[in-house]
Amino acid sequence: MAVPIILIVALIAGIISIGMALYFRYLVLKEDPGNERMQEVAGYIEDGAKTYIKIQYKILTIFVTALFLIMLFLLPSRIHPGSLNWEQSLAYLIGSAGSMLAGWLGMYVGIKANTRAAQACTKGTKSGFDVAFFGGSVMGLTVVGVALIGVSVIYWIFGDPYVVLGFSFGASSIALFMKCGGGIFTKTADVGADLVGKAEYDLPEDDPRNPATIADNVGDNVGDIAGMGSDLFDSYVASIVAAMMLAAAFGVVGTISSPLGNVTLTEAGTGVLVVTPLVLCGVGLIASLIGIYFIKLKGSDEPGKALNTGTYFATLIYFGLSALFTLLLAIGLTPEEVGLLWRIWGTSAIGLFSGIVLGFTSDYFTREDKKPTSNIAHAAQEGHAVVILSGFSYGLLSVVPPAIGIIIAMAVAYWLSGVFGVAMAAVGMLAIVGTIVSNDAYGPIVDNARGIAEQGDLGEDVIRTADRLDSAGNTAKAITKGFAIGAANLTVMALLFSFAEEADIPNMDLLNVGVLIGAFIGVVVPALFSALLVLAVQRNAAKMVDEIRRQFEENPKILTGEVAADFQKTIDIATKGSLRELIIPSIISITIPISVGILFGVASLGAFLAGAILSGFVFAVFMSNAGGAWDNAKKWIEDGNLGGKGTEVHKAAITGDTVGDPFKDTAGPSINTLLVVMSLTASIFMGLLLLFNGGLGLIPF
Amino acid sequence: MAVPIILIVALIAGIISIGMALYFRYLVLKEDPGNERMQEVAGYIEDGAKTYIKIQYKILTIFVTALFLIMLFLLPSRIHPGSLNWEQSLAYLIGSAGSMLAGWLGMYVGIKANTRAAQACTKGTKSGFDVAFFGGSVMGLTVVGVALIGVSVIYWIFGDPYVVLGFSFGASSIALFMKCGGGIFTKTADVGADLVGKAEYDLPEDDPRNPATIADNVGDNVGDIAGMGSDLFDSYVASIVAAMMLAAAFGVVGTISSPLGNVTLTEAGTGVLVVTPLVLCGVGLIASLIGIYFIKLKGSDEPGKALNTGTYFATLIYFGLSALFTLLLAIGLTPEEVGLLWRIWGTSAIGLFSGIVLGFTSDYFTREDKKPTSNIAHAAQEGHAVVILSGFSYGLLSVVPPAIGIIIAMAVAYWLSGVFGVAMAAVGMLAIVGTIVSNDAYGPIVDNARGIAEQGDLGEDVIRTADRLDSAGNTAKAITKGFAIGAANLTVMALLFSFAEEADIPNMDLLNVGVLIGAFIGVVVPALFSALLVLAVQRNAAKMVDEIRRQFEENPKILTGEVAADFQKTIDIATKGSLRELIIPSIISITIPISVGILFGVASLGAFLAGAILSGFVFAVFMSNAGGAWDNAKKWIEDGNLGGKGTEVHKAAITGDTVGDPFKDTAGPSINTLLVVMSLTASIFMGLLLLFNGGLGLIPF
Repeated sequence: MAVPIILIVALIAGIISIGMALYFRYLVLKEDPGNERMQEVAGYIEDGAKTYIKIQYKILTIFVTALFLIMLFLLPSRIHPGSLNWEQSLAYLIGSAGSMLAGWLGMYVGIKANTRAAQACTKGTKSGFDVAFFGGSVMGLTVVGVALIGVSVIYWIFGDPYVVLGFSFGASSIALFMKCGGGIFTKTADVGADLVGKAEYDLPEDDPRNPATIADNVGDNVGDIAGMGSDLFDSYVASIVAAMMLAAAFGVVGTISSPLGNVTLTEAGTGVLVVTPLVLCGVGLIASLIGIYFIKLKGSDEPGKALNTGTYFATLIYFGLSALFTLLLAIGLTPEEVGLLWRIWGTSAIGLFSGIVLGFTSDYFTREDKKPTSNIAHAAQEGHAVVILSGFSYGLLSVVPPAIGIIIAMAVAYWLSGVFGVAMAAVGMLAIVGTIVSNDAYGPIVDNARGIAEQGDLGEDVIRTADRLDSAGNTAKAITKGFAIGAANLTVMALLFSFAEEADIPNMDLLNVGVLIGAFIGVVVPALFSALLVLAVQRNAAKMVDEIRRQFEENPKILTGEVAADFQKTIDIATKGSLRELIIPSIISITIPISVGILFGVASLGAFLAGAILSGFVFAVFMSNAGGAWDNAKKWIEDGNLGGKGTEVHKAAITGDTVGDPFKDTAGPSINTLLVVMSLTASIFMGLLLLFNGGLGLIPF
Repeated sequence: MAVPIILIVALIAGIISIGMALYFRYLVLKEDPGNERMQEVAGYIEDGAKTYIKIQYKILTIFVTALFLIMLFLLPSRIHPGSLNWEQSLAYLIGSAGSMLAGWLGMYVGIKANTRAAQACTKGTKSGFDVAFFGGSVMGLTVVGVALIGVSVIYWIFGDPYVVLGFSFGASSIALFMKCGGGIFTKTADVGADLVGKAEYDLPEDDPRNPATIADNVGDNVGDIAGMGSDLFDSYVASIVAAMMLAAAFGVVGTISSPLGNVTLTEAGTGVLVVTPLVLCGVGLIASLIGIYFIKLKGSDEPGKALNTGTYFATLIYFGLSALFTLLLAIGLTPEEVGLLWRIWGTSAIGLFSGIVLGFTSDYFTREDKKPTSNIAHAAQEGHAVVILSGFSYGLLSVVPPAIGIIIAMAVAYWLSGVFGVAMAAVGMLAIVGTIVSNDAYGPIVDNARGIAEQGDLGEDVIRTADRLDSAGNTAKAITKGFAIGAANLTVMALLFSFAEEADIPNMDLLNVGVLIGAFIGVVVPALFSALLVLAVQRNAAKMVDEIRRQFEENPKILTGEVAADFQKTIDIATKGSLRELIIPSIISITIPISVGILFGVASLGAFLAGAILSGFVFAVFMSNAGGAWDNAKKWIEDGNLGGKGTEVHKAAITGDTVGDPFKDTAGPSINTLLVVMSLTASIFMGLLLLFNGGLGLIPF
């Protein structure tokens, strides 16, 4: 199958993106890094983050090598049956390396940007915003650039989406480590710092006397920047690959069907269909670049509004530009195929639109001026327990609107262009991911900048400026989460369909007990996974609490500021703890799907994935939104409402916030990655699973 | 199809059971109700409970009448096509009335037993135990007796399990109200009493100065006795009906199939198969009666041990006795059918055995001397937030072992005798439900007795005796919960299969987008339902807190004991709140399944049920066990560990307990009933659903 030349759009967009990222990196690095104390603090953060990443990458290298060898020698090759599976395994290596590179680059610039953003705040809101936003954009653009270049080049060389699947698997397995490990790290430090520093010693946020402050800042970088970046990298690539694989599969069959009727595919049509997701992503990247430029232009006045308007702007540009490119893609196709292309364009637009709707609902459920969060804040008046019950309930309630949104998006996408439409809705939702990640990575940079401003004694005014920048990032963050969860959900749905197509599963009938058992296990896994991650944070935070208490007790001069706290020790605890604790969750994510497939067969494995996707959606949305709402309820009280700081109400709200920390920043967002990794594992290891009773498994029902 | 005479076993067992219940009632009522103050307190509790039940039953009468008319006029009759659906509708009325009667009788004796048990404690542990246990047994025996008599008689008269389905639907719809309403009532009072009384004013448990004390005691009766009784009544009847319907359906086909091969069914064989669940339940009831006698005999020495040993004893007797009755059932059948009967006996035994295993795992996760609860208690040392995180995680982790247990039970049962085996495993698990409910209802009676002893000034010694009796009920309660959740899960699985069989659904293929959407909605519903119930408790508890604070502030003499608190006001708040708050959850449970069926068809509705069953299992186990563990962690600290009462550690543990209250006593156990009601709704309204596009729904995919 010839690769259509229009694929070049994706490649060029990717290269431009990397070029822009390097340029932004240059812009950030040439800024003034601030006074000596600031540089010292930034140095600590940098050292901590680098140490963590170094150990993390060492472990990852071993893991990746092992999985590479397994894929190479154990899995049957689909490209050249009988020979080694080298193409896919190589793509896996490249995908892993790409994900690690994107994570590293983004985080590196993030670390450099924080002290520079703090210093820039002395010059005003605009300067501070620019530095932080450029810093964040480096992450966003690198992620998208590496992904597009990697996928296009691999597809160009091998001409088979199945090889690209290896690339996606590489990206995902790295993302799982980055997301879980980073999430555990950042919340171990954050929860520990809050519990002793804030609750017991009444120290303000980011106080340099708190031994866990630096660890907390390090956590923002390894968890929120590198982690979130690799998470969206992984969904982005997976959505593209799922769509490509489905297109190729329908090409083999010769037709693509939806409730609107069957469309006969020509060879040229199939060729175009396979690259359509890549081309539309290239278009989305161009739209993102324009969006970023727009934000840069508008950022001066109202940073928060600028971030959001930039997103909507990118969305509009995508709608127009993608229609234009659909015209180009349609050249030389049959009228029937052209009609299909337009329906596909429609599904991608619906995907993007519903992503924004999802973002809005998660914003609604976590904004302090809306009813849920306001009720949670008021519940704090009745004490610790009631604020927990309230946040817990609203978190669960918040699952309903996005579920309806996803169901409608899925139904309409399916109606327009079948299961391929579901995949294209996911692609559409992620099309402007460049803007999304940029906005999101901006958050931890200004958060860190605020901390450095505090520790560098830049004065109240600068801190207030940094605060303003910080709060601007919050809405953006809520919207990103909505996007991330929605996109991951549609992506794994698409992967599920592509898995079923590849494994040639006639049906996944829940009336078959084997299939029902698969679904049962699938529904339980996200609960188990969340439990392990929250427990990991709780366990490590307890260690952190003990260490901070020890430092304060053994050396009371830390509290008076005469002696510096031992930052290294707390960073050590977070580093070691998080790396140790991510072993079991990551093993689970790969071994459980393989075991289900071997024991009960591929149809049961499909139902397992479906069960995990649905229950994972519930847990991800619940945990993210409950955490966000508790966080903002606390902030609202800290703004002087219901008595403000230091009251019993405030203390209860802090309890809510602390419970929500690992919900929203560790377990919740890690579930997305878990789902993608499990789905890809199923597809990658399918050749192996088919060896057991022809895919019926060892215990067929 | 002739009804085999052996069905008489179930009827006789049911009649004996009611006879015993009346005798126990007599034994309880002739006891000394204690001093004047005790009778006064007991009178308050009785008045409160009666008022609640009266209003509740009034609402229920309207609801039942409406549903009766809908069933009568809207649903097509299956018995006499074309005529009114009067048989099933009548059975529905009888089922509702039976459930209301059982709830009322059980609760009435419970109320009478509490003050008498308190008074008996002055004579020693044995006397107190006897009164409380007899009181609880009235509930257990009434539930089982009413169920067996109702089902046998209706089947004897109409000879069609489809009519019995109406009886089951009646039982379930009442159970939903009793369980949700009672759960909200009891926790509104409990949480309110704890938050102000314990946490703010340092009043001990059950202190008469606390205005919510009586409401709390009322709650124990309406929530734990009447609610739990109607919950198990509902699962019990539903499991029997599911098995009967499956047997009848296979009888029509002429074969029953499992991985062990197909068995051809004769007409006589089918007749026996249909009544087998009833006969085995009759046998289980006899085993339960012997178990109850055994507990009465042993109760003197170690009450806690006696309750458990009684359960194991009843289990063993069931194994033997049911084998004997299998021999009787086998008379006149073909050798092939006899083999099948023995396999069915095996599945019922496996069901009962796995029920006990489930009870054990929930016991493990909630016992203070085991690692999870001990870790949760230690987490309280790090403050409110950490104890919540710890309990949350262990609660989620605790889902895994029972899930594995259910999966194995289901797989083996299916392997032995197909989907009918799954239904028979549920029947087996519930066979000794008489013992289980008796043990469970014992708990709130001694809990109340303790409160009355406290308020009646019976002295430290008597209170300590009551405390000992109280703690004996805890393990029994944990085991009951394991049973209840496991049994409900297997029952709804069986109902799902019977629904599919009746609706003639060829498959429920998750690769069909309509089916996938059904599963998606199903997975979300238990989350929504839990959210609504927890929110209801939180909202009402906040009102209760305000009322208690108001009473203390307006009348400080309440605290000194000079003026009596206004109990009526707090009971009012709990009554009105709980009845108002259960409207939405109960509407949801009936309208959502019908809507899914009308919109997306019966296959999608089947997947909806499957999704709800699986996610409901996760939520039910998680919430029950997290709540139980927090409760026991707090008790362990109150026993003097980690500093004991009044410390910061204790306060954090109270927060955990308070959060756990609505988890374990409102939302968690209500999910079982929700699942049964939704499954039965699907079956009952199937005739209606098939009118929409022949069961494909308005939006077919």
